[in-house]
Amino acid sequence: MPLVEGSLEASAKAALDPDVWHYVNRGAGGDVSVDEATAAWRRYRFRPRVLRDVRRVETDLDLFGHWRTPIGIAPSAFHRLYTPDGELATAAAALACGAPMVLSSRTTTRLEEVAAVINGPWWFQVYVMREPSITAATVRRARDAGASALVLTGDTPYVGYVPPTGTARPLPLTDELALANVAEHLPAAGVDDIWELIDQDAGITTDTIGWLANESGLPVIVKGILRGDEAVRCVEAGASGVWVSNHGGRQLDRALPTAQALPDVVNAIAGQVPVIVDGGIRCGADALAALALGASAVFLGRPVIWGLATDGQAGAERVVAAVTDQLRHAMGLAGAVDLAGLDPSLVLRVSAG
Amino acid sequence: MPLVEGSLEASAKAALDPDVWHYVNRGAGGDVSVDEATAAWRRYRFRPRVLRDVRRVETDLDLFGHWRTPIGIAPSAFHRLYTPDGELATAAAALACGAPMVLSSRTTTRLEEVAAVINGPWWFQVYVMREPSITAATVRRARDAGASALVLTGDTPYVGYVPPTGTARPLPLTDELALANVAEHLPAAGVDDIWELIDQDAGITTDTIGWLANESGLPVIVKGILRGDEAVRCVEAGASGVWVSNHGGRQLDRALPTAQALPDVVNAIAGQVPVIVDGGIRCGADALAALALGASAVFLGRPVIWGLATDGQAGAERVVAAVTDQLRHAMGLAGAVDLAGLDPSLVLRVSAG
Amino acid sequence: MPLVEGSLEASAKAALDPDVWHYVNRGAGGDVSVDEATAAWRRYRFRPRVLRDVRRVETDLDLFGHWRTPIGIAPSAFHRLYTPDGELATAAAALACGAPMVLSSRTTTRLEEVAAVINGPWWFQVYVMREPSITAATVRRARDAGASALVLTGDTPYVGYVPPTGTARPLPLTDELALANVAEHLPAAGVDDIWELIDQDAGITTDTIGWLANESGLPVIVKGILRGDEAVRCVEAGASGVWVSNHGGRQLDRALPTAQALPDVVNAIAGQVPVIVDGGIRCGADALAALALGASAVFLGRPVIWGLATDGQAGAERVVAAVTDQLRHAMGLAGAVDLAGLDPSLVLRVSAG
Amino acid sequence: MPLVEGSLEASAKAALDPDVWHYVNRGAGGDVSVDEATAAWRRYRFRPRVLRDVRRVETDLDLFGHWRTPIGIAPSAFHRLYTPDGELATAAAALACGAPMVLSSRTTTRLEEVAAVINGPWWFQVYVMREPSITAATVRRARDAGASALVLTGDTPYVGYVPPTGTARPLPLTDELALANVAEHLPAAGVDDIWELIDQDAGITTDTIGWLANESGLPVIVKGILRGDEAVRCVEAGASGVWVSNHGGRQLDRALPTAQALPDVVNAIAGQVPVIVDGGIRCGADALAALALGASAVFLGRPVIWGLATDGQAGAERVVAAVTDQLRHAMGLAGAVDLAGLDPSLVLRVSAG
Repeated sequence: MPLVEGSLEASAKAALDPDVWHYVNRGAGGDVSVDEATAAWRRYRFRPRVLRDVRRVETDLDLFGHWRTPIGIAPSAFHRLYTPDGELATAAAALACGAPMVLSSRTTTRLEEVAAVINGPWWFQVYVMREPSITAATVRRARDAGASALVLTGDTPYVGYVPPTGTARPLPLTDELALANVAEHLPAAGVDDIWELIDQDAGITTDTIGWLANESGLPVIVKGILRGDEAVRCVEAGASGVWVSNHGGRQLDRALPTAQALPDVVNAIAGQVPVIVDGGIRCGADALAALALGASAVFLGRPVIWGLATDGQAGAERVVAAVTDQLRHAMGLAGAVDLAGLDPSLVLRVSAG
Repeated sequence: MPLVEGSLEASAKAALDPDVWHYVNRGAGGDVSVDEATAAWRRYRFRPRVLRDVRRVETDLDLFGHWRTPIGIAPSAFHRLYTPDGELATAAAALACGAPMVLSSRTTTRLEEVAAVINGPWWFQVYVMREPSITAATVRRARDAGASALVLTGDTPYVGYVPPTGTARPLPLTDELALANVAEHLPAAGVDDIWELIDQDAGITTDTIGWLANESGLPVIVKGILRGDEAVRCVEAGASGVWVSNHGGRQLDRALPTAQALPDVVNAIAGQVPVIVDGGIRCGADALAALALGASAVFLGRPVIWGLATDGQAGAERVVAAVTDQLRHAMGLAGAVDLAGLDPSLVLRVSAG
Repeated sequence: MPLVEGSLEASAKAALDPDVWHYVNRGAGGDVSVDEATAAWRRYRFRPRVLRDVRRVETDLDLFGHWRTPIGIAPSAFHRLYTPDGELATAAAALACGAPMVLSSRTTTRLEEVAAVINGPWWFQVYVMREPSITAATVRRARDAGASALVLTGDTPYVGYVPPTGTARPLPLTDELALANVAEHLPAAGVDDIWELIDQDAGITTDTIGWLANESGLPVIVKGILRGDEAVRCVEAGASGVWVSNHGGRQLDRALPTAQALPDVVNAIAGQVPVIVDGGIRCGADALAALALGASAVFLGRPVIWGLATDGQAGAERVVAAVTDQLRHAMGLAGAVDLAGLDPSLVLRVSAG
Repeated sequence: MPLVEGSLEASAKAALDPDVWHYVNRGAGGDVSVDEATAAWRRYRFRPRVLRDVRRVETDLDLFGHWRTPIGIAPSAFHRLYTPDGELATAAAALACGAPMVLSSRTTTRLEEVAAVINGPWWFQVYVMREPSITAATVRRARDAGASALVLTGDTPYVGYVPPTGTARPLPLTDELALANVAEHLPAAGVDDIWELIDQDAGITTDTIGWLANESGLPVIVKGILRGDEAVRCVEAGASGVWVSNHGGRQLDRALPTAQALPDVVNAIAGQVPVIVDGGIRCGADALAALALGASAVFLGRPVIWGLATDGQAGAERVVAAVTDQLRHAMGLAGAVDLAGLDPSLVLRVSAG
């Protein structure tokens, strides 16, 4: 049960092209949000229960599918930047762990191929593109390929500004790879036009939730929520789940750490829909805090990429498995035998220092 | 959209005489206030809204004039210390950005010449001098030259003590330059008498607000406010605006950071008059926090000087433009399309560490 | 009255095999709890009383026996790892100081031999083993050998995961020593089976409290409590005392520091049974804070081991005597002449930094 | 108006014997209280008033005498350790500044000689010795020599333990000097007996307040108060003033910083008697915070000794004068023209970091 710690990150850095490394680990603006995400979880302390029968501790979860772990794989773009098999490796890792995986809209493999590996439910992340028909087509394809939920990214009307560092060369990615998922929907036009068509539509609103649900027939989770009132607004517009995220610190810098935003959202939602969280979670203790605070599931972003970069499918699998094992171990020591046994009284937020 | 960060400050330091650099960046007393001003803004975190149509984000502002940005140029003395064109360069930068500029009483260029560059509204900063007729004459000249508001400095009955450092030579400034704005009002007396006549009057009170308004016919903003009750007292005495400032940490050391004082003042004023703020603001995120907390506009002091020192008008212009661009970018990511869309729920103050 | 500070710890480190040192000082998981335990006590400040007659200050205590000091020796395993006489040295130190000693279930000396040294009351720490008859037999032997209370470890259904460091060799401990206390109850079976029989039973519940009381006729203190509601639950199940502990940071990492958990437990228990505390206490001032907050007694873990490692019985004795002397000195300066004179108003928790 | 900062302390360190330096700067126990005293004042921020007529700012004070400054000289022992003229130099400094001076019971000059220098009111610090007649005689002598108040040290039933450092040689002090103030009251006995007679009486209580008042006819201020209820208890027993102090961190280590204890005491006393404070005050801003929080006067301990060590009377005088000047300067910038114009709304305590 090794921890997912500095050594994995260092291995990934050594394995990756510096520009790719910068792309993976970068934050927006002044890097405040990316830098504090993990420390924000580590401010929580546990208040374990004692003298409970914990011979058997289970982490099973029903959430738009049945999973053996609440530790999921967050959506991220272009996995062939990290390992030759790209998203196929990631999907195989998810399958091996019984973990929920969210496939990005921006993959280097057609979604149908990835879905074939998973052979069961998975979730599809959605950017609404300026040409909405492309988005409509991809979500229908996702549904047809077995997706059980859509994850609408709500925090990215446009991409957050990142100061350039290092060589600032473009990512080593061919157009063919970058367009794998949408190529079939594009007109035979000049390249510049293409990129504009598939760029994010900065004009989408909560109306998009209902539109996606109608197009796909799937439940829609809105990702990028950091406040309770916005979560409620999304649910009122038809969302079937909300995902607390600050986009890994890559969008609005100084956005609240998810560890601090989660309780507000959980409280506002009051059980109407599931609440999911990502951002800075690096080990089972972080995950335990999140689940105790009311998250139904916890998603890993960069750690999975570090695993892919270090050792492909096996690397990603080890990350998800290790965090799951750590979670199960900690649950037992905290006196809980299943996810239903976790509640906010298990955690207390302490001040820094 | 580069950030106004350490590199600009370092360039300015390299460009300036060490004594001038010390004069610019110094704080009073033990440097507590000057050192903590920026960090105080960085304690605020954002609670962005999502799924808003942010295709068009505007930063326009009506505040004793119409401006394209709420990022203004705070008053500071003697711009020819920084660039050969002095205040003419600053004014040209303000004009280019559509930004409000406050011209200091202590300029190295006659105010009429500066006003001619701006070709529109501007604000005039007022020290009441021991010989009040000089002040009266200058504010009338400012009005005649197009000033749309006066900014009465309320926190400087006398200049705060600064421990000497470095060479401690006098500033490289001729009397002619130092007296550019007031020379025409001075008697043909010995130099010592002159400096006494134009020194601050430590005896001014809130009666000065009405006196200035009467002399000039202009609205009077009181600068140097750090508490709600004092803000109210100034408004009751006729102030048309209050400006939260600790004078860049150059007056009473350990005065409250403006980032911490602002909410108290906004709350006490309750919308009666506009509230303005300066102090430690270095980027669009700082500005977004200030505007969300209730400031109508945000003024930059040292960063503009650094810009002037580095590249004259173009340098100052880049500073104001960059902070404006960062603000607009961050507003969109926070779900706001104009300044009216900002409110205190967008920010949360977090503890340090 | 030397302090128990870095120098003792350094001497112990120099005296011990690196693997033993790692075993002693290690924490579980990411070492958060082990690292912050001492600092958590040092956040308390004292509010002394003045002008009290403190010519005579006493530290006597009645708590399942009569003691001359409330500074006790916490249970820890395998003392022959630290000094040739093992638990016999520890017992002699306790006797010399008039201090309560808790003998571990996992000793390198038969409990009867240790009890013979103490020649008076002592407490026996209990792990319920998978083969309960072994536990039942040992607690009856403890009672027969003069134990006046049992301390049931409630926070260890299984041993917390510790990342390996250093050589990661097994502890330099023969089976004969490791099994000294239980050998007589073991079947003549293969070694693997033996270790399984005596491993912790992860299935115990609060029912174990009554079972132990019935088997031994002794009062049962539950150790490992970090929250008031769990303390009450144990008392309702028959516990005669509760012991606030996070197992020296060796079980659930990020469990609340005992310095922070103690007030909640004291408050919930409301005087029904005594509350004991350990974890990070290194000097008389730490102990004074704990006693003022409502602990009846304060136990030392690692410092006693450091004393044993450095100078055997004399080393352990100096540790307990020094902390007792420091406590008595501080009590007088705080205006208290006995333990009954301590109350929560003597302490105030301050923020870090 | 130089600050009393590191450079003075460094000069004093260079000028003094290492053992004397250790004696001056030492704290008790783990040095927590001595180390945090100054930082505790620096947590206060100011909320200045503006637009007040501050052409004339006065620091005059009536407090058991009339003084030109509220910055006093705290009692400390054996000034001939620091400068050849000892307490005579200190008294001359106090006189020059118009500052209240508290003469220690443990002087290296007879109190009558010191009083002759001061030529006006002064205060006498009292330890009640085991032989009370010696104390009674000295307080009568103090009254006869012009003392206007007694300062009873309440926090020292015995001397706080200080871990030895450096050479740990005895102080370079002859018996004749150490006994200057009490020699005339001692029997012609062996030296050991003498030291016992004049040692502190650990048995004194609040009854001592009335006894001292009766013996001397002078008002009695109790020094060493850190909590409101104890302050009230002293006033109920006849105290005419209370002095918030933790004895410079030399008695109970981890006693609350005086900066943090002062508001509680001021609040509990509610104006019945004056409240005085010492501990960690190093500049006018520290003093301004203390006075705004409700202290009537502020006393300097170590800084005066550093001044004496560096330059005798002139050194001590510069310290008191500098802090007074800094205070006056800061008062004006805060909008206050006299001590009556200070109130708690001028300060706000901020968290560290």
